[in-house]
Amino acid sequence: MKVNNNSEIPAPEVQMEGASNVRMKILIGPEDGSGNIIMRHFFVAPGGNTPFHNHNYEHVIKVERGRGIAVDEKGVEHEVAEGQSLFVRPGDLHQFRNPFGETFEFLCIIPNPAKQQ
Amino acid sequence: MKVNNNSEIPAPEVQMEGASNVRMKILIGPEDGSGNIIMRHFFVAPGGNTPFHNHNYEHVIKVERGRGIAVDEKGVEHEVAEGQSLFVRPGDLHQFRNPFGETFEFLCIIPNPAKQQ
Repeated sequence: MKVNNNSEIPAPEVQMEGASNVRMKILIGPEDGSGNIIMRHFFVAPGGNTPFHNHNYEHVIKVERGRGIAVDEKGVEHEVAEGQSLFVRPGDLHQFRNPFGETFEFLCIIPNPAKQQ
Repeated sequence: MKVNNNSEIPAPEVQMEGASNVRMKILIGPEDGSGNIIMRHFFVAPGGNTPFHNHNYEHVIKVERGRGIAVDEKGVEHEVAEGQSLFVRPGDLHQFRNPFGETFEFLCIIPNPAKQQ
């Protein structure tokens, strides 16, 4: 059993093209021995956004704090907040934006890329 | 994209042998289309516990509220609280207990059983 203190994990700026004012920390991942599942914590600052993109793996998401806009595969915007969970299918376009005044925080869980099909 | 309201998801009592005063809701799972990853939210009431057991799949855990005792594969007890994340390897014995006065809540993410090796 591995126990991590989340506050001690660095949260670097996400460098992906199309991302703005987003930080991410890996709460549990390959360095902890997790071969199949990676649990990531995203922090989208006010005015920030992730890219509108897709990829061949899914997202399992839980909003942890604040609220934001989740854009779905049809471009439809959903306002989401703490107390909601989301599923993004492999291949579906998606984006997360924060037009609000406090940081929008969510967990985004993915399969380990090494195991992706 | 599927958006779930966590509060609308039922949290039935866990019927597994050795579990006591534990409820669980599936925030995202196969019914949402998630083929690889299941995100579950556990509620261990004061005095409650999960079984001390093992199985052939891992646990990726984030404490969401309160505190509890996580028993590791050697029987060593770790007090854990909100702000900590845990990884339990496939095959490792583990248990979660709540000797404290408020509900111990954690997310426990597992691979979809249908995909387990």
